[in-house]
Amino acid sequence: MILDIISKKANNYELTKEELETIFMGYLKGEVKDYQMSAFLMAICINDMSDSEIFALTDIFIKSGKTLDLSFIKGIKVDKHSTGGVGDKTTLIVGPLVASCNVPVIKMSGRGLGYTGGTIDKLESIPGFVVDLTLEEIKKQAEDISIVITSQTEDLAPLDKKIYALRDVTATTNSIPLIASSIMSKKIAGGADKVVIDIKVGNGALIKTKEDAMRLSNLLIKIGSYYQKEVKTVISNMDIPLGHNIGNKLEVLEALEILQGKEQGPLYNLVIELAGKMVSLGKEITEEEAKKEVIDNLNNGKALKKFLEFVKYQHGNIENLTINAKVYNIKANKTGTLKSINALNIAKLSQSLGAGRKNKDDKIDYNAGIIIRKNIGDDIKEGDILASLYTNIDNEKFNLERIFEIS
Amino acid sequence: MILDIISKKANNYELTKEELETIFMGYLKGEVKDYQMSAFLMAICINDMSDSEIFALTDIFIKSGKTLDLSFIKGIKVDKHSTGGVGDKTTLIVGPLVASCNVPVIKMSGRGLGYTGGTIDKLESIPGFVVDLTLEEIKKQAEDISIVITSQTEDLAPLDKKIYALRDVTATTNSIPLIASSIMSKKIAGGADKVVIDIKVGNGALIKTKEDAMRLSNLLIKIGSYYQKEVKTVISNMDIPLGHNIGNKLEVLEALEILQGKEQGPLYNLVIELAGKMVSLGKEITEEEAKKEVIDNLNNGKALKKFLEFVKYQHGNIENLTINAKVYNIKANKTGTLKSINALNIAKLSQSLGAGRKNKDDKIDYNAGIIIRKNIGDDIKEGDILASLYTNIDNEKFNLERIFEIS
Repeated sequence: MILDIISKKANNYELTKEELETIFMGYLKGEVKDYQMSAFLMAICINDMSDSEIFALTDIFIKSGKTLDLSFIKGIKVDKHSTGGVGDKTTLIVGPLVASCNVPVIKMSGRGLGYTGGTIDKLESIPGFVVDLTLEEIKKQAEDISIVITSQTEDLAPLDKKIYALRDVTATTNSIPLIASSIMSKKIAGGADKVVIDIKVGNGALIKTKEDAMRLSNLLIKIGSYYQKEVKTVISNMDIPLGHNIGNKLEVLEALEILQGKEQGPLYNLVIELAGKMVSLGKEITEEEAKKEVIDNLNNGKALKKFLEFVKYQHGNIENLTINAKVYNIKANKTGTLKSINALNIAKLSQSLGAGRKNKDDKIDYNAGIIIRKNIGDDIKEGDILASLYTNIDNEKFNLERIFEIS
Repeated sequence: MILDIISKKANNYELTKEELETIFMGYLKGEVKDYQMSAFLMAICINDMSDSEIFALTDIFIKSGKTLDLSFIKGIKVDKHSTGGVGDKTTLIVGPLVASCNVPVIKMSGRGLGYTGGTIDKLESIPGFVVDLTLEEIKKQAEDISIVITSQTEDLAPLDKKIYALRDVTATTNSIPLIASSIMSKKIAGGADKVVIDIKVGNGALIKTKEDAMRLSNLLIKIGSYYQKEVKTVISNMDIPLGHNIGNKLEVLEALEILQGKEQGPLYNLVIELAGKMVSLGKEITEEEAKKEVIDNLNNGKALKKFLEFVKYQHGNIENLTINAKVYNIKANKTGTLKSINALNIAKLSQSLGAGRKNKDDKIDYNAGIIIRKNIGDDIKEGDILASLYTNIDNEKFNLERIFEIS
C-alpha cells in the first residue's frame, strides 16, 4: 500500500488526499519508515505536486497538531515569515516596528538548522532573554505590549517538523511545493489572519532562481486564499548578505542600529517594505500610508522604544550585549572595486566561526560572527580591511576563499 | 558532500565514478544512512543513469566483495539468470539439462523475497537437500558431476545485497540501470565466462513493458561486453504463470515432469530456448546444433538422470516428495473460453497460501501452492475445476478475484 503510493508519485501520477494522508500520517505514527518517506520526498522533489496535492498536504500538516486561537487579541493578526537568508535579522526590527504602529505581532520563530542561527537563537543571544512562553504568558504579553516572539511549540504542525528534519539530511529541501506547504501550515496553525512572506533568492538562499521565487510566491498566495488568509510576498536578493553583521549578537546590534536610524541601505529598505506590507494588511490601509507611518515610527524613536520594551518584557538585558571573542581582520589582497560578497560562503565561514550549528544539538557561540566593513561598489585599496571575524575557536585556517570579489 | 551528490542526481546531472564510489561505499560502511540512500535511489529511478554511470556502479558492486575464481573448472562456464517470474522453475530443469550436454553449470541462486520462492527455496523443499556449500565442496562436486547449485555467499557483491534489500522496501525496484548492474555484478563476481539471461515481461514481472525489457537486454549485453563476457538474452512473457504449478514442492514436481518428457507448452519451449543458448555459448556451436543436443538429452533421459544425480549429490531425497496440505478447488462460475490467467494475482494468492514470504524472516510452507488445471484457449464449462489450491492455513477466504478471465 505504502509502496504503491510511492510508486504512483515516482511515475508522476497525481495522488488523492487519502493517499497523501495514508503515507504522511503513517510517517508521523512511525509506521512509514524514514527511508520510505525520503524516497517519497525525492519523488515529489523531481516530479512536483499539483495544486490540489499541495492544498491537501498543507491541510494534513495543520491537522497533525493543534491550532492556536488568537481571537482573544483584538484586531487583525499579521504574521511574517522569511524563507531564510544570511544576515537576515529583519524580524528583530520589523516586529517592534509594526507593533509600534498598533498592529499586534504574535510570532512563533524557529532556531536555525542551516549555516546561521534563527530568530530565536538571535534573541537568546541577549542575556536573560526567555523564548519559551506558555499560552497564558503569550496572552498577557500580547495584551500588555502588543508584541510577543516565542519559540515554536511542539504542538503546532508536528508532522511538518518531522518532515523538515528529514528533508534537511536527504537533499530534499528545495522543492517549491514542500516549502510552500511547510510555511503555510505553520502560519495557519499559528493563528495568523494575514501573512507577509519574504522570499529570499540567490546563492545564499534555498531558492536559487527568480522563476522558483515567483512560483513559490504564487503558491503561497493560492494556499492563503484557500484558507481565506490574505498573503503578500516580497522577493528579495540573497546573493550578498543582508546588512553588515552576521552572527547572533552581532545581528541584534545591527538591528538596534537600524532602530536608532543609524543605518540605511538594503536592510533598511527591506525593513520598510516588509513592515509597510504588514501594517497595510493589519490596518487595512494602502501600502503608501502604511510605509509613511512605519518610517515615522523609525524616525521618532517609537519603534526603538517598543523594541526595548519587548526585550525587557521577555527578561532580556540589552545593556549587557558585549562581544566576547577574538577578532581577525580579512584584508584586501588587491586594489579595485568591490564587485560581490558571496552570501553562501559568508554563511559557511560564519558557521565555522561558531555562529551556526553543524548538527541539531550543537551549541551556538553567540559572540561569533562577521562584520562586513565595505559595501558593493566601494573602491578598495590593497590592505584595506574588508571584514572582521569574531570567534572563540582556536583555528586560524578559516576558509576565506571566494567571499569577496574585487575587480 | 553526500547531499551534494544526491542533489546532483536529483537535478539530472551525470555523476563521476568517484562520486558514485563515495556514496555507495559510504553506504556499505554505514556512513551514508538508509534514508539518504533511498532518496538517492529514487532520484536514479526517475532520472535514470548514463552508460558510464552504469558501468561504474557495476564495478563498485563487484569490488565491494570477493570474486569467485572458477578457472579450476575446465571449459567455458556459462551462468543463467532470470529476472523472476511466477512459476519460474527453469533453473531446476535447465541446469541438469545443460550439464548433461557436458557444459559445466556452477550456479549461485537466491531465495525469493517477492511473492514466490526462489530457486534455493524450491531446492530446499526436497527433503534433505543441502544448499550451503563451501568452496571446497563446490569444487569437488563440479569435478564429479559438472553441476552445482548453491546459495549465494555473503562475500559476493555484498553492497548489491544491501542495496537490493533497501530497494525492495522503498519502491525503487523497477529501475532498469539498477536491475542491470545488480544482475551483472553478481554474475561477474560469481566467476561466469558467459551468461544467458531470461528477461520476464508482463504483469507478473518486475519489468512491465516490452520497451523496458529491450532496454534491459541492451544494457546487460553492453555491461557484459565491457567485462568481455558474452551475454545472450531471452525476453519471455509473464502475463500468465510459467507452467502449471506454483509453489516450491509443486514446482519441483513439474520440473520432473518436463525432464521425464511428460509436458509440452510454454515452459518446455522456454527450457529448450535457454538451454540451447547456454550449450551454444558453452560449446561454441550454433544455437541450432545446441538445441538439437538439448532436445535429444531430454528425450533420451540423460537430463533426468543428471537431475537425479545432482539432487542425490546434494543429499536430497526426491522419493519423499509428497504434498502435505489441504486442497481447495477453484471452479469456473461461467461457461466460455479461458482468456487469461493473471500472473500477479496468482503470485499473491500463492503467497497467501504460505508458498512465499511476506517478510524477510518468514518461513515458507514448501507444501503450499497452486496447480492450474486449464490452459489459455480451453473451452470451460461452469463448475469445471480451474485450479487446485494447496495450503495448511486455516482460512478459506483467499482472494480468488481477478485470476481467471473467461469470455
